[in-house]
Amino acid sequence: MKGGSIEIGEVSKGASQRKGMKRGLSIMDFILRIVAAAATLGGAVGMGTAEESLPFVTNFMQFRAEYDDLPSFVFFVLANSLVCGYLVLSLILSVFHIVRSSAVKSRVLLIVFDTVMLGLLIAGASAAAAIVYLAHNGNSKANWFPICQQFNNYCQQASGSVVGSYIAVAFLIILILLSAAAISRH
Amino acid sequence: MKGGSIEIGEVSKGASQRKGMKRGLSIMDFILRIVAAAATLGGAVGMGTAEESLPFVTNFMQFRAEYDDLPSFVFFVLANSLVCGYLVLSLILSVFHIVRSSAVKSRVLLIVFDTVMLGLLIAGASAAAAIVYLAHNGNSKANWFPICQQFNNYCQQASGSVVGSYIAVAFLIILILLSAAAISRH
Repeated sequence: MKGGSIEIGEVSKGASQRKGMKRGLSIMDFILRIVAAAATLGGAVGMGTAEESLPFVTNFMQFRAEYDDLPSFVFFVLANSLVCGYLVLSLILSVFHIVRSSAVKSRVLLIVFDTVMLGLLIAGASAAAAIVYLAHNGNSKANWFPICQQFNNYCQQASGSVVGSYIAVAFLIILILLSAAAISRH
Repeated sequence: MKGGSIEIGEVSKGASQRKGMKRGLSIMDFILRIVAAAATLGGAVGMGTAEESLPFVTNFMQFRAEYDDLPSFVFFVLANSLVCGYLVLSLILSVFHIVRSSAVKSRVLLIVFDTVMLGLLIAGASAAAAIVYLAHNGNSKANWFPICQQFNNYCQQASGSVVGSYIAVAFLIILILLSAAAISRH
């Protein structure tokens, strides 16, 4: 009888330790979600507000660059906005996981959506990165000239936004690994 | 005694049904892996062999387009080759899962690598898609002219390769969902 109660005590100690660990993972999940949301918001706003007008005008051209001149940048802004919105909404579930650390189904749901959003974010960031590279270096074979020589600030802002988006990608990967760790601890 | 044996019989029937279902999932996994590997191989070879020489030469220009003229296309070929190689290697583990359908750890390993490869493939396909779009439509604001008007066959082949790569992305997503289903059936 005594041995039995010691055993039960050990089991409940192990269970509460595991519960504390899961709660720790959930709190980290919450913080990382805010950071990732900030990174995507930075990416979307940075790219969305990127514009530059050159200080001269001719009859033929306007010499003004905006983000919606390039379809890849529009896709980039859309993808980052969507992922940012999703991350903010997912904070509700993240708080729920801190309160009820034994929930599993909602964690699986979250991991699936996180992965979908990761794919979308990678697609947007890669498409924008390809165009930013082209804007910086041009391509002599295709006769595409580097526009960054004229629109330097515009290019700087677009490049920064792409970097911000890739930082969000890194945080989303960590988020998915954390969720997987929390599920496997079940 | 009789009731007990019926119950055991039902349990073992349920277990063997579940085993049969997991084996079915493993065989589907194997087939989908071959299809996805073929799609990435098609993408890599299609883009890698894309070249076109125009039937006239001047002193200034060669009028010849190859895949390695554009860095995004080089990344695309590398990403597709890598994923194709990984998919062929992963067939070994896939066969192992058909034989031993109760394996879980190796399935988790496979799902992690599948997801990494999915990210790489999406990045390559999106970067190439951004450039292919530009090659088709050009961009008047950036003074980038559509090169597909001259290099029509080259563009057709590059576009087809990107489509093949996106088909591989779709198959990889199905593969990951199948693996997740097999793990959750455990």
